Amino acid sequence: MKNGGNLTFDFCRDEGLAFINIVKESKRGLFLVILANTEIAKIPQISAAGKYPELTDFTPAADAELLLYGSCKCIEGVPVTPEGIPTPAIITRSALKLYNEPIFIVSGGLNVKPHVPFFDLGGQPGRDFRQRPAVERVRETFERGEILGRELSKIFDYLLIAESIPGGTTTALAVLLSMGVEALGKVSSSLKENPMDLKSKVVKEGMKRARVNFGDLSNDPLEAIHHFGDPMMAAALGLLIGAPPETSILLAGGTQMAAVVRALKSMNIDRLENLAIGTTKWIMQDRSSDLKGLMKQIGSIPIITSNIDFKNSKIDGLKAYESGLVKEGVGAGGAVINTIVRSEGKISVKEISTEVENEYLRLIKK
Amino acid sequence: MKNGGNLTFDFCRDEGLAFINIVKESKRGLFLVILANTEIAKIPQISAAGKYPELTDFTPAADAELLLYGSCKCIEGVPVTPEGIPTPAIITRSALKLYNEPIFIVSGGLNVKPHVPFFDLGGQPGRDFRQRPAVERVRETFERGEILGRELSKIFDYLLIAESIPGGTTTALAVLLSMGVEALGKVSSSLKENPMDLKSKVVKEGMKRARVNFGDLSNDPLEAIHHFGDPMMAAALGLLIGAPPETSILLAGGTQMAAVVRALKSMNIDRLENLAIGTTKWIMQDRSSDLKGLMKQIGSIPIITSNIDFKNSKIDGLKAYESGLVKEGVGAGGAVINTIVRSEGKISVKEISTEVENEYLRLIKK
Repeated sequence: MKNGGNLTFDFCRDEGLAFINIVKESKRGLFLVILANTEIAKIPQISAAGKYPELTDFTPAADAELLLYGSCKCIEGVPVTPEGIPTPAIITRSALKLYNEPIFIVSGGLNVKPHVPFFDLGGQPGRDFRQRPAVERVRETFERGEILGRELSKIFDYLLIAESIPGGTTTALAVLLSMGVEALGKVSSSLKENPMDLKSKVVKEGMKRARVNFGDLSNDPLEAIHHFGDPMMAAALGLLIGAPPETSILLAGGTQMAAVVRALKSMNIDRLENLAIGTTKWIMQDRSSDLKGLMKQIGSIPIITSNIDFKNSKIDGLKAYESGLVKEGVGAGGAVINTIVRSEGKISVKEISTEVENEYLRLIKK
Repeated sequence: MKNGGNLTFDFCRDEGLAFINIVKESKRGLFLVILANTEIAKIPQISAAGKYPELTDFTPAADAELLLYGSCKCIEGVPVTPEGIPTPAIITRSALKLYNEPIFIVSGGLNVKPHVPFFDLGGQPGRDFRQRPAVERVRETFERGEILGRELSKIFDYLLIAESIPGGTTTALAVLLSMGVEALGKVSSSLKENPMDLKSKVVKEGMKRARVNFGDLSNDPLEAIHHFGDPMMAAALGLLIGAPPETSILLAGGTQMAAVVRALKSMNIDRLENLAIGTTKWIMQDRSSDLKGLMKQIGSIPIITSNIDFKNSKIDGLKAYESGLVKEGVGAGGAVINTIVRSEGKISVKEISTEVENEYLRLIKK
């Protein structure tokens, strides 16, 4: 795989290229999407992953339905931002359509359950950490994730772990700060204008409530997720710990995955091997966040970027991605990387973006 | 695989031997256990899958925990019959320990959820069909099972489908009768004395409530399961329909699986290929039931029997299996067949029964 127009290696380039080679050689891959809700998403102006804050409850379930069925069941149409920009699950679905990997859905804790089969880890939706600890029985969700990771790694030598959780960058900020990562102004946003001040204010309130200061939970990842995180993190951490380091894992997501890696680092440093973050260029080009700046503080985990592009798209809903709306989610970046690498470069970002346009038009017609 | 002491081919011998060869050649196998509850299990004297009728709610969840954790979480000890005879999940676990297949748990609809990751198909526990239809949204569970079958068959070329549902032979009787199979006196029982008269009375009441006579639903399997079945059947049928006929499937269970095959036959006759029932000799030697007699009416699906034996066991709880208690469940028979065939005969029933004894002693010590 050349570092050509399809992919960019933005951080730990050599490790990233090595990881790509491992992925290419992998025999059996699996695309996992962890769904979760958090009450944090319902704070006005904090998330664009739903037309209204209340609708964010439906977004993860609808994303899962779109991936597996090709249309949503729990809502009409597809999840959109307040401006009507469609969910990145369209990108994920298109990429996975061109290179067929099996897809499993995992629930970390949901208010709205998808109308598709999903792995239940017994968790509850995340709560507003300004009032109370965010993830109630974090160890239980973590432990079930661990068993699932163990069972899956008997079958698969390569896992993609994606997420759909509105509000997830704010919980990421809180976990990162509590674990001693300078993350203010560094987590991204599905909104065009990153509401950094609002996020920072919300997180400060939460840390005050829990009487936790910057870095206090540096060595206690489960406590950090319990107080400030979300059920996606508990599930992802369990999966990572349950799967042995021989299993290659691509964390398909943006700055939320930095929080997961930070937690992992305190739990099992060996598992940082054979691990990468796969994301979109919209995350990496964003000036209001800094995934690289986060990872510099956390560890040498390569960041691989997929250069899918809608600059020349005739479809306004997709073109809007170029203005910084949405950016990432449902493993869109990782799914594109996967299709490019697993097809050994035969499928390019160009073909994937054409497929996304077709998929978009098909869904609009519905 | 010779038809030696380990396995017996009781019905459609040639097809059974051919199936065994396919299993041997299969690249990737998966052991699926479908858990479900039905209110029918709470009718006094109808099921031995729990110390008291009310405890049957816990049995499927506890079985799943035993399989994946090695001990139960939702109850103390392990599920037992009123006489204290332990769950056949001990056999399943031992067999799968000697030949390691990945295990996925599926919930068809449960009152008590297991403390392990499981696939949720969105179903509810089955209701008492004497009062109302047994499986409320049968099509939904079926359809989600179908998607799961489709996704799993992208990965696995061979599936074992097992069940844990107390009361499941009575729902099997009702479905079989409504679909025109002469099943009175032919379904088995976890009790030593098969309560045939009670089962027949209960089923008659249900058929009267639904105004359905023998054979009325011969061509309507989902309606038969809706009225008289249980969520395990809805899930199993979905999995079978979702997985293409190229995927080899061993239905690991006793007479309950006859009801599943009867339903399948009305839905997709092609899927009867590459299919077998795997069970225990305790089912096949039982004089109060007649799996072969059921299958003669349904179709040429081979029945493969594992001859695991506790005649000479020093452990009373296991010896009791020889007197006709429990007989089958949690895919015990199928798991033993699987270990024998997949190890190419290197592991025999003898070794598996020794492992069961060790496992039993380990659990008792706990």
